[in-house]
Formats: sequence, structure tokens, C-alpha cells
Amino acid sequence: MSAYALGLDFGTNSVRALIVDAANGNEIATSVYNYRMGQAGVIIDAKDPNVARQHPREYVDGMTKAVKDALADAAKTSGFAPDKVIGIGVDTTGSTPIPVDESGQALALLPEYENEPALMAWLWKDHTSHAEAAEITKLAAKMRPQFLAKCGGIYSSEWFWAKILHCARTSPDLFEKIHSFVEHTDWMPAVLCGMKSAADIPRGVCAAGHKAMYNPSWGGYPDEKFLSKLDPRLARIRQTLPESCQSIAQAAGQLCPEWAERLGLPAGIAVGIGAFDAHLGGVGCGIGAGTLVKIMGTSTCDILVAPMDRDLPDVPGICGIVPESVLPEHYGLEAGQSAVGDIFNWYVHSIKPDHMDHASLTAGAENLKPGASGLLALDWNNGNRTILVDQRLTGLLMGTTLHTTPAEIFRALVEATAYGARAIIERFEEYGVKVERIVCCGGISAKNKMVMQIYADVANVPMEISSSAQTCALGSAICGAVAAGKANGGYDNYADAMAAMTSTLPERFEPIPENVAVYERLYQLYKRLHDLFGTKDYAANQYDVMKELLEIRDSARNA
Amino acid sequence: MSAYALGLDFGTNSVRALIVDAANGNEIATSVYNYRMGQAGVIIDAKDPNVARQHPREYVDGMTKAVKDALADAAKTSGFAPDKVIGIGVDTTGSTPIPVDESGQALALLPEYENEPALMAWLWKDHTSHAEAAEITKLAAKMRPQFLAKCGGIYSSEWFWAKILHCARTSPDLFEKIHSFVEHTDWMPAVLCGMKSAADIPRGVCAAGHKAMYNPSWGGYPDEKFLSKLDPRLARIRQTLPESCQSIAQAAGQLCPEWAERLGLPAGIAVGIGAFDAHLGGVGCGIGAGTLVKIMGTSTCDILVAPMDRDLPDVPGICGIVPESVLPEHYGLEAGQSAVGDIFNWYVHSIKPDHMDHASLTAGAENLKPGASGLLALDWNNGNRTILVDQRLTGLLMGTTLHTTPAEIFRALVEATAYGARAIIERFEEYGVKVERIVCCGGISAKNKMVMQIYADVANVPMEISSSAQTCALGSAICGAVAAGKANGGYDNYADAMAAMTSTLPERFEPIPENVAVYERLYQLYKRLHDLFGTKDYAANQYDVMKELLEIRDSARNA
Repeated sequence: MSAYALGLDFGTNSVRALIVDAANGNEIATSVYNYRMGQAGVIIDAKDPNVARQHPREYVDGMTKAVKDALADAAKTSGFAPDKVIGIGVDTTGSTPIPVDESGQALALLPEYENEPALMAWLWKDHTSHAEAAEITKLAAKMRPQFLAKCGGIYSSEWFWAKILHCARTSPDLFEKIHSFVEHTDWMPAVLCGMKSAADIPRGVCAAGHKAMYNPSWGGYPDEKFLSKLDPRLARIRQTLPESCQSIAQAAGQLCPEWAERLGLPAGIAVGIGAFDAHLGGVGCGIGAGTLVKIMGTSTCDILVAPMDRDLPDVPGICGIVPESVLPEHYGLEAGQSAVGDIFNWYVHSIKPDHMDHASLTAGAENLKPGASGLLALDWNNGNRTILVDQRLTGLLMGTTLHTTPAEIFRALVEATAYGARAIIERFEEYGVKVERIVCCGGISAKNKMVMQIYADVANVPMEISSSAQTCALGSAICGAVAAGKANGGYDNYADAMAAMTSTLPERFEPIPENVAVYERLYQLYKRLHDLFGTKDYAANQYDVMKELLEIRDSARNA
Repeated sequence: MSAYALGLDFGTNSVRALIVDAANGNEIATSVYNYRMGQAGVIIDAKDPNVARQHPREYVDGMTKAVKDALADAAKTSGFAPDKVIGIGVDTTGSTPIPVDESGQALALLPEYENEPALMAWLWKDHTSHAEAAEITKLAAKMRPQFLAKCGGIYSSEWFWAKILHCARTSPDLFEKIHSFVEHTDWMPAVLCGMKSAADIPRGVCAAGHKAMYNPSWGGYPDEKFLSKLDPRLARIRQTLPESCQSIAQAAGQLCPEWAERLGLPAGIAVGIGAFDAHLGGVGCGIGAGTLVKIMGTSTCDILVAPMDRDLPDVPGICGIVPESVLPEHYGLEAGQSAVGDIFNWYVHSIKPDHMDHASLTAGAENLKPGASGLLALDWNNGNRTILVDQRLTGLLMGTTLHTTPAEIFRALVEATAYGARAIIERFEEYGVKVERIVCCGGISAKNKMVMQIYADVANVPMEISSSAQTCALGSAICGAVAAGKANGGYDNYADAMAAMTSTLPERFEPIPENVAVYERLYQLYKRLHDLFGTKDYAANQYDVMKELLEIRDSARNA
């Protein structure tokens, strides 16, 4: 009997529902709901670009609509019926903590608090808590260096505790109403399972480990002594968190009758534990030891796993090393580039060279030989997430002449992101995490062959492309199929599920030896500039040049 | 009785005739003849971008036409008559040597040679002789280091002996027909004076000193022993050159009857010694000790003078230090930036950001506060003439983000050229040549107030603008008036002539203290990058980065 899995993918701007055939991963129906902007949905603040909040109502309403539409679409597929859906998986952005009351209810869903941004979901890209993040980094460096070692050395303003601390400091009265904070990725399964107490909500290791300094090696979440030193109110929140978190292999629970009815799905089917989009994107690409999955869009997220049967050293500059956050019995490792497609978009839409679009710039750029422009760029227009973990870095373009063309610059920007990608690979390999295979997914990998060829040539590794155009949602569906188990038409483990349900396109991008040779030389120059301006690694570094420029900029703007 | 002077200004693309009132410098008539392109005029070679030759016929015919048109125009001015013209001055580009026969005739004017590029004028920007220039530099460094000390340390492919050596090597048969080479700036006065022997042609110190390693301190032109070591044929050319050259204060001779008739001017009037356009541009701006004259166009030429009553050290990186090349009793010093307007033009016409023009980019850029973009650029898109004397350098832009705008980049490019200008000023001052006043002329100074304000703020010196829009031609006319002498209605010295005939605009650009403070910080960063990539001045320099990039580029293009 055929069985289907539902993947729910909550992105920054929309929620997607995907229904796949559990036997082979065929995507039979999909639907996307775009969040409303403004008070009702996504809140941004023109006066403070650091603010980014989402209203949880959009998550609930958007999910309902997307699932119903997908089911309606799926009904056209012969053999499909809603009662053949065996499991649900969930991925979201993160760290996106939601303030909840004791019952686990999002406070923003209560009428009295529905217009309080402090009580909405603190979207991953909310950067209001940069000062608190620095404070946490500073204290951890002194008191609990092991906390930092697992998250690349620096605690980010995008993460759980920084946001909570900022909330406590800036909205102290509202903070008193908050019982706990639940990551978006944990809250959605709890809603679907009809959990009636915050204490019952299972928390996944993915969010906890990568963003909340959770690690079994030191007993779970950070200890109260450490948190109290930052603010006693953090210790109170700590008391609402479980002692241990769930691995990706575990189910969060079963779909409750109320939500079964709202969605038109069978009550009691499995709901997988939630995880971040990029991590389940890794699953959707068929990740395994030695396989680097690159989710390439406006920014890039890199996901790797390493078997837990041997020790893994801390890898400096890597966003996180978390047991079982991507696959059971594997460490999950996350890295990323702060801007990739965003750099190309900036060049096309802000600089508007000769009013050329992506296609015409690509057409011009792909006619160029590697190295022939004499240009070299640093891909730091939005800072550097991995391996430098430094937002206060900026882009650089070197080698311009009076003959430099827009297409040459475009190619140099693409190459710069490829060098940045290689620096991440080298960092992993330097610490013993082998990259034997690379699978790419996301908009850029599907749309721009030139970019993929350059990445293959720069990394000297073939680039494979995921067959799915919605890989994160596919990963969620796989998570649902594993949660359901083989007995119910799903799978008992990820390896079997991924083998059956994922694939890559037949066309892969092979490194071209003569290009590899040129890019080898260029990469060495990139790495020189990278270390020169981005590190304090040697005596005559120029680390302070970009910092000083930004300081001059900031004082000029505030003058 | 009123008296007039004629200034002839031979540029890269045209010759201009300017008639001025000798009493006050009022410009009463002007006319421009644009050289024809192709075999008949300016020869460039699509296959070899280094080739740039001009046919001497264009000089002769163009001058005739321009003078006649200017005289016709001047006839409208009440009180003017051609017989009131008392002297002629000449400026040209250089080094632009012309092969001549024993009579001083340009060989290209003889029917049998009229289509031989090797026998035409070797335009200043002809770079075919780069290998020969390197050879001369190398030999001089070993054998006659003093030759290099006076020309900034490196002999250029644009200069006299390099071109002659290349001609001998690549066109040996035609070379045998050449009696001597005469700089364009010396040849024009010789034509006007009707000289019938190459030996009679006076050579000005301007061309000889700045481009042909002429200096009285070592007995004039380079010695035959040195030249023979390069090629015995150079020694033969050396024998055709005079033992000493003429200062700018001396006349070349008198207008011969034949040319008086052709031009419609009185025979016997004074013809000044020829000099380079930028040098007479200095005169047209009223140069004197402590005054830096900047001729700002596609590139920039900087002219300074220093009194000869005290010793002047050799200034590294300066294009030349030549006694009396600009003013009598003063050393003439020349510096320059390889690209200024050319960088702005490249950005507007090649990158075409949002199809904005100079005016709209300037409008956007002038609304920005100094430093507020966070950008910093190096102005090396066409290499660096002064102070690094290095064509193998390239442009750089640092500090880009995802919000960087075209106007911000435009302003950063303007600022970069201002920093380059300041580096030149600092180099002069470091070696005891004070810059107390700056007078600008040329297209940019007349057209773009924002550029001028930025230059004032970066240099922390007021920028004055020449009243004349054709300052080189005005300088030539002054040269003609001085050659004529006071007795004939002219002047006995340059100081009196400049005081009467030159002026600056009432509006000058004063440094704005808060801008000066920001640019002081930015300039220090510019200087860091400048030294980092452009010099070998410290242990951890990155001098080889741009070189390696260019090497990769050149091999990619030749592959």
C-alpha cells in the first residue's frame, strides 16, 4: 500500500507544505503561504534594521492553509488519499525563540499581547541583541570556555540566550509574563501534537545544540550559575527547559485529533522532532559522512556530519558541532557564508551595471577564462560567518583597470564566493572532517551552471545537484517518514529513507584541470588577503584596516 | 599700442591656436584643429595597443589651419590686426620624437617615406619600447645611477632614448635613413623659423631634461660610451645633438618669411623655445616657488618649481627635476597621476552603473558625508606614475557591503585620486619642496566642484582654479610674449608676464575642517594600502599580490 509523508518548511518569508511518496521521494504536491508583512506578520523596523519579529499567528494560519492547499493538489494524484499520510516533519529557521506561557501557548496569540513585538517570535535575523551576545561571549570565555569551543568561538546575536537576555533587559515587565522560550522548530510539533504544558514540549538537539549551548558533555543547557551571572532571570528560564533534548531520530509525538481535523489528516500519525531548515536540507540531499551539503541561496549554509564513534576536535570558526542534530549517531556540523546570492543581487540590483540582469552578466562572465580579468574579490559584503565569524568585515575588489567590464566584476564576485566556500572545506579537512563529495541545493545551484562550474573548479571537487527543488521540505518529509517507522510504511532509519527518497541530477559539474590550476594560484592570493584583513594571524596583519574604516563610517553616519 | 601673442598647443588629438592680449592675457580668439585618424594622421594599431604614431603632416597642416581660423576670429576684436602679433609660443606632448634628415626635415614628409610608421612622430603614449626602457634602466642603474636619480629612478618606455633604440632594433633599414630625432616641441619652432639644418635646431631643456637624460651636471645628454653599450647606433644619434640646450627663457628664433606668409603673420617676430604642454600649463597658471600647478584631465600632471639658488635633493618617484624647464632660475619638477578623469570615465562609460552620467553620480556623491560610505579605493586603474613609477599596479575598492551604492563608489574613486594627489604633495614636501598654494586647471577643475572640494579637504590646502580654460595655450602665448621682449610690447621676464597675463577664479575651494579631520584618518588607511601593495618598504609587504594577479591574467590571456 502506498504511503505519503508531509514536510513542513517554515522559511523566513513563507511556509511550504510538501507531500511526497514515501517509497521513492516523488513530490506529488506542494503549496506555499507567504507571510503577511507588518503588524499581522513579519515585523521589521525602518528605524532599527536590527529588528525582525514574526507573529506566531502566521505560522499557525499559514501552515493550515498550505497543508490544505497541498492536500487538494495531491488529490489529483491517482492513488493518493489523506489517510495515506503516515508522518509529518517540520523544519524552520533558527534560532527563532517564541515566548510562551506555562501551557506552552505562544503569548502573542493571547488577545492582550497580540501587538507586543517583544512577545512575538524573535526571527533568526533579529540582531537587536548584539551587545548581549558580546557579553555572553565574554563571560563564557572566562567562565565556561567549553561553551564557546562548540560554537566556533563566538556566541552570536542571532542566538537563543542573547535574544532572551535582550528581551529581559529591554521589556522587563512583559518578560515577567513569559514562562519559557520555545524555538519555532520545537513549537510547531508541540502545536501539532496538542501539547498542553510547556514542560511537555520536547526540544530538539538541533536548535538547542547549535544555538543554546546545549551539550550532553556538560549536562545539557548552560548551568544556572553561569546564566545567573549574566542575569538571574535567565536562570529562571533555564528551569523551564528539559534536562535532555531529543535527537533527530526521535518523534515529537502524534498528531492530535484537533489538528488532524483542522488539516484533514489522520489523527495519531507521527510528528517528527523539529530541526533547522538547512539541517533537514542536508537530509533531503542524502547527507552522510564525507558528504558536504551546500544550501545555496542569498546566503549559503553548509552541513556536514561526522560519525560519533570517534572523537571530533573543536573546529574553530564553525557555527556548531552538535551530536545527532542532523543524523543519528553523527555529529552535525554547520558552517555558512553570510552572503552569496545576496552579493550577486547587490551587484545586479544596486549597482545595476549597464542595466544587465543575472542572465546577461552570466552570459558575459562565462565567456571569460579563469584569471583573465586580473580581478580578485573578497566575499565579505555581509561579513564572514565561517571561518572568521566576523560581521565587521567588508567586501574588496582588486585588480581593476580602465578596461575592466561589468561581466568581469560579476565573475570575480562569483569566484570570491567560491573561494570562501573552499576556505570552509579546508577548515573542516584541517580538523579531520573529510569532504569527499559535495551536493548542492537551493536556488543558485538549480539556476546558474556557470556558478556551479566555478565552484567545482575552485574546490577541485565535482558539484552534484539535488534533484529536488525544495530540498528542505523533502528533508522534513523524510523526517516524518522515519518518525512513522517501517511498520507504518515509512522507515526505521535515515540511511534507508535517504537511499530511497533522495537523488541528485544526472548532470554533475566536473572540475576542469586547466581551470583548477589557475584557480589554485588565485585561491592562494585570496587566502592571503583573507588572512591579511580578516585575522590577526601574523605580525604585519592589516586586521585593523576594515575595522577602522567601519568605525569612521559609523561615526560619520552618526555625526 | 596694443600687442598680442599667439600660443600654439599641440595635444594628443588636436592642435589649438590661441591669440591673447599681451597686456592682460585676455583671450580674444581660439581655434582647434582635430587630427585625422588613420594613415593620414594618428596611427594606432588594433593588434598592438602599444603603438601610437602621428603623422607630422598633421602638425604642419593643422597648425596652419588653426592659426588662420584664429586670426579670422580675432579680426572681429576691435583694435586687433595680425601685425600686432609680437611672438609665438609652442607647447606639445612629449616625449614625441620625430625622425628627421640632415636638413631637419621630418622624413615622413618625404614622398618615399610618407607611409612608414617608424618614420612618423612617436607619440608620447607609444609604449612599444617597454623592453628597451627596462634595458636602459638596468644599464643606467649599473653604469650611470645619476641619470636615473633625476628621473625618479626608472627610465620610461614613453621616453626619447627607449623609442630610438626600439626603432633601431625593429626597423634597422629605415633607421639608416634617420639623421637625428627631434622632439615635436623642438621641431615646431624649427619649422616656423625656417631652419634648414638639423644641427641648427635649438633643443629645449624641457624635453631634453625630462625625457632624454640631459643634465648640465654631467655634461648634457648621456655620454656616447653609455649609449654605445646599449647600441652603437644611439651614439651616432647622440653626435647630432647639441652640447647644451636652451632654457625656457630663450627664444628659438624668428618667424621666417615663408611661414609668415603662410600664416598671415609678420615675418621676424619671436618664436619661443618649445616646451611640454603641462610645463607651459604651469606658466599659464602663474607658477612660482611654492605653487603646485595641477593640470587635471583624463590623467593629471603636477608641475612645481624650486629656486636654483639652493641645492635640491633627488626626489624619488618624481618624473623629472630639470633646471629651467619651466621657469628661468628654477628647477622644474614634474609629477603626475596616470589616470584621474579616466577612472571616472571608466566607471561611467564601462561599468555604467544604473546608466547614471557624471552629473547624476556627482549629485548623489556630493550629498554623502566624508567617510560615511565606509569605502576606500586605490587609484591605480592605470598604474601609478608618481610616486611609485609602476605601471603594473591595479585599482582596488574596499569596504563594500550589500547596501553600497553607485554614488558611493563614484565618490570613493574621486577620493582615491585625491589621496594619490596628496601622496605626491607629501613626497615633494618630504624632500624640501614646499607646497604653499595649489592652482588647478584642465577639464575636471572647471567642471566638477565636488571633486575640487574633496581635493581641498584631503590635501588641507585651498584649491584655486585658473581663470583660463586653455591654460597650456595661454602659457605658450606667454612664452611668445617673453620671447618678444618688453621693447616689442611683451615682457622681459616670466614673473612680469605671469603677473599681468594670468589669474585665478574668484571662487576658490577652502578646506572644511570637519571634512579634513575625517580625510586625515582615511588618508592614513589609503597610505597603508598604498605602501602594502605598492612598495617593498616593509617585511610583510604584499607587493607581489598585484604582480602575481597580473601575471596570472597575462598567461590566461595568452593561453
